[in-house]
Amino acid sequence: MNTTFDYQHLYNFSKNIFLQIDCSDTDAEIATKSLLSADLRGVDSHGVARLSGYIRLWEAARVKAKPDLKVIHETPSTAVVDGDRGLGLVVAPFAMHIAIDKARAVGTGWVSVKNSNHFGIAGHHAMMALEHDMIGIAMTNASALVAPTFSKERMLGTNPIAVAIPAGNQPAFVADFATTTAANGKLEILQIKNLKAPIGWIQDKDGNASTNAGELKNGGTLVPLGGDKEHGSHKGYALAAIVDIFSAILSGANYGPWVPPFPAYIPMPENMPGEGIGHFFGVMRIDAFRKADEFKEHMDNWITRFRSSQTITGQDKVIIPGDPEREMEIERMKNGIPLLHSVVEDLKALSNKFKIAF
Amino acid sequence: MNTTFDYQHLYNFSKNIFLQIDCSDTDAEIATKSLLSADLRGVDSHGVARLSGYIRLWEAARVKAKPDLKVIHETPSTAVVDGDRGLGLVVAPFAMHIAIDKARAVGTGWVSVKNSNHFGIAGHHAMMALEHDMIGIAMTNASALVAPTFSKERMLGTNPIAVAIPAGNQPAFVADFATTTAANGKLEILQIKNLKAPIGWIQDKDGNASTNAGELKNGGTLVPLGGDKEHGSHKGYALAAIVDIFSAILSGANYGPWVPPFPAYIPMPENMPGEGIGHFFGVMRIDAFRKADEFKEHMDNWITRFRSSQTITGQDKVIIPGDPEREMEIERMKNGIPLLHSVVEDLKALSNKFKIAF
Repeated sequence: MNTTFDYQHLYNFSKNIFLQIDCSDTDAEIATKSLLSADLRGVDSHGVARLSGYIRLWEAARVKAKPDLKVIHETPSTAVVDGDRGLGLVVAPFAMHIAIDKARAVGTGWVSVKNSNHFGIAGHHAMMALEHDMIGIAMTNASALVAPTFSKERMLGTNPIAVAIPAGNQPAFVADFATTTAANGKLEILQIKNLKAPIGWIQDKDGNASTNAGELKNGGTLVPLGGDKEHGSHKGYALAAIVDIFSAILSGANYGPWVPPFPAYIPMPENMPGEGIGHFFGVMRIDAFRKADEFKEHMDNWITRFRSSQTITGQDKVIIPGDPEREMEIERMKNGIPLLHSVVEDLKALSNKFKIAF
Repeated sequence: MNTTFDYQHLYNFSKNIFLQIDCSDTDAEIATKSLLSADLRGVDSHGVARLSGYIRLWEAARVKAKPDLKVIHETPSTAVVDGDRGLGLVVAPFAMHIAIDKARAVGTGWVSVKNSNHFGIAGHHAMMALEHDMIGIAMTNASALVAPTFSKERMLGTNPIAVAIPAGNQPAFVADFATTTAANGKLEILQIKNLKAPIGWIQDKDGNASTNAGELKNGGTLVPLGGDKEHGSHKGYALAAIVDIFSAILSGANYGPWVPPFPAYIPMPENMPGEGIGHFFGVMRIDAFRKADEFKEHMDNWITRFRSSQTITGQDKVIIPGDPEREMEIERMKNGIPLLHSVVEDLKALSNKFKIAF
């Protein structure tokens, strides 16, 4: 069912596609790295599987290949970036660079972005801070698929949060998660594989629990992390709301049910209150708090202690956030990236359309 | 079962108790306001129910009544505060004032605190930012009761996060939640009332699901928000870990299983790597991003739209984070604060010990 491709092969192909839609060489490279970091880290739904989706957004004139990215407001520790409808894959690293520069200057940097598009995986952007001995934070809103607690209406996106924290001898701590019980990408994969979803992931259009991984096509909704009120779904709802507000109301992007959809064929919401989708980035310099060496020594101690905590029966280890993705990246860099048949067909269609060998 | 007391009555009593242990008049006032904000907002487990616990920490010389609070490291947007074993109820507002001053100067302020104690409810501190047209963030670590995903060992506290965001004509958005399916305080209340806990809140000492609200006394653990791996408990675990790291590894406090317990009779953990418990505070000035009026107008639009989203059968409205607590505060300010019999007995014992009328 899967065919495996070398990273370099997918890299060259994706970069060439971005060049074909008239991205600059630098931007094509940045976009490709952002995109493929998802495939490497095992977030299959957010990698080359979406390449044709980005191209369709460009065809629909919802994505500009040569955006005029600029800071429209700033203070020593903050900035608002207008993404000018650029690829989120490129806008996000631009904004992270600004946050890193501000952290270098005054300890921390916080950047809210409007007028952007889907930025790939949040973790990739957050991790940009690590090599500077800084903590990186990345979040984004997304088109509405999630019902708040007690609701059956699509009001929030899966609004992911990523936090990357440097360690010393241990690998970095990298959390990257949707604020729902399950990311939409996981449901997409279940649908492609024709499998059922566990109870507690989705509601039908009336708000009843459903195991139909395709329920979203029938007007259903995802539920916030926690699942139901009794198990804390109001907390997942609050987290998704905070991501929405930091990403879009601080910047002037669209929020809540007005966030533009990723698929270009879905009509835009009416009466949109902002521009494009919104992201939020934060960077904190470790030595703005204490010596980086001391911090890293304690991070190593934290990680080692948690890794050795007692497991329940049937589990052989406790996972540190970022462990599975890092292991996957090493494995896939070495042995290639498996793609589903439908994704390969999608890439072949792009290959034909743009006359780029695949 | 409950007796109801006027806010002012509990205020005078609590302040007098803090004065009796030699807090300054200002600190006694700040501590009392922090403490009673929990009772007013309906977080009964964190209010006067804990007053005797704080006093026992003072008796055990784990809390100092006249701490020397100071900034031990700073940059324009960051600071580390040494709480000098002061009451967290006082240390937290001190740190928030610093964060607010830094936000005024450079757009945002971020303060990590070591050598502190239990700070009451996170939301009270986060809300200090609101009157300045700033967003407030407060979090704290706490002694270990929570097992990471796949573990049965107590490694993390209930590590709450609060985020307070100003609005215009609408009341502020105030999220304040433990990063577990249920806060420990809720279990304490169930135990006092002799009720069972829902499945998905607690594990027994071997990591099996349990409905015994007293399971923690048998070596059981709370579980992270999400409940189990299939429903995203690795996300709740990551959130609790982030709170732990920001609060304690940035500052030099204790973390993970080494966080000192609140009850003074529980022995301190061995080989503690830091000082006291840790908190983390953040403040962002709205107009460091965009005009405050514009922001508030969109917050009003966000809140109004979410409040009117379609409900599932049996629910009459969708709740905005902070709604129930605000309504409770109005109600209890007017009609008094109901206290359980056991809490009243506890306060009477304090009254006898310190010769302060109750």
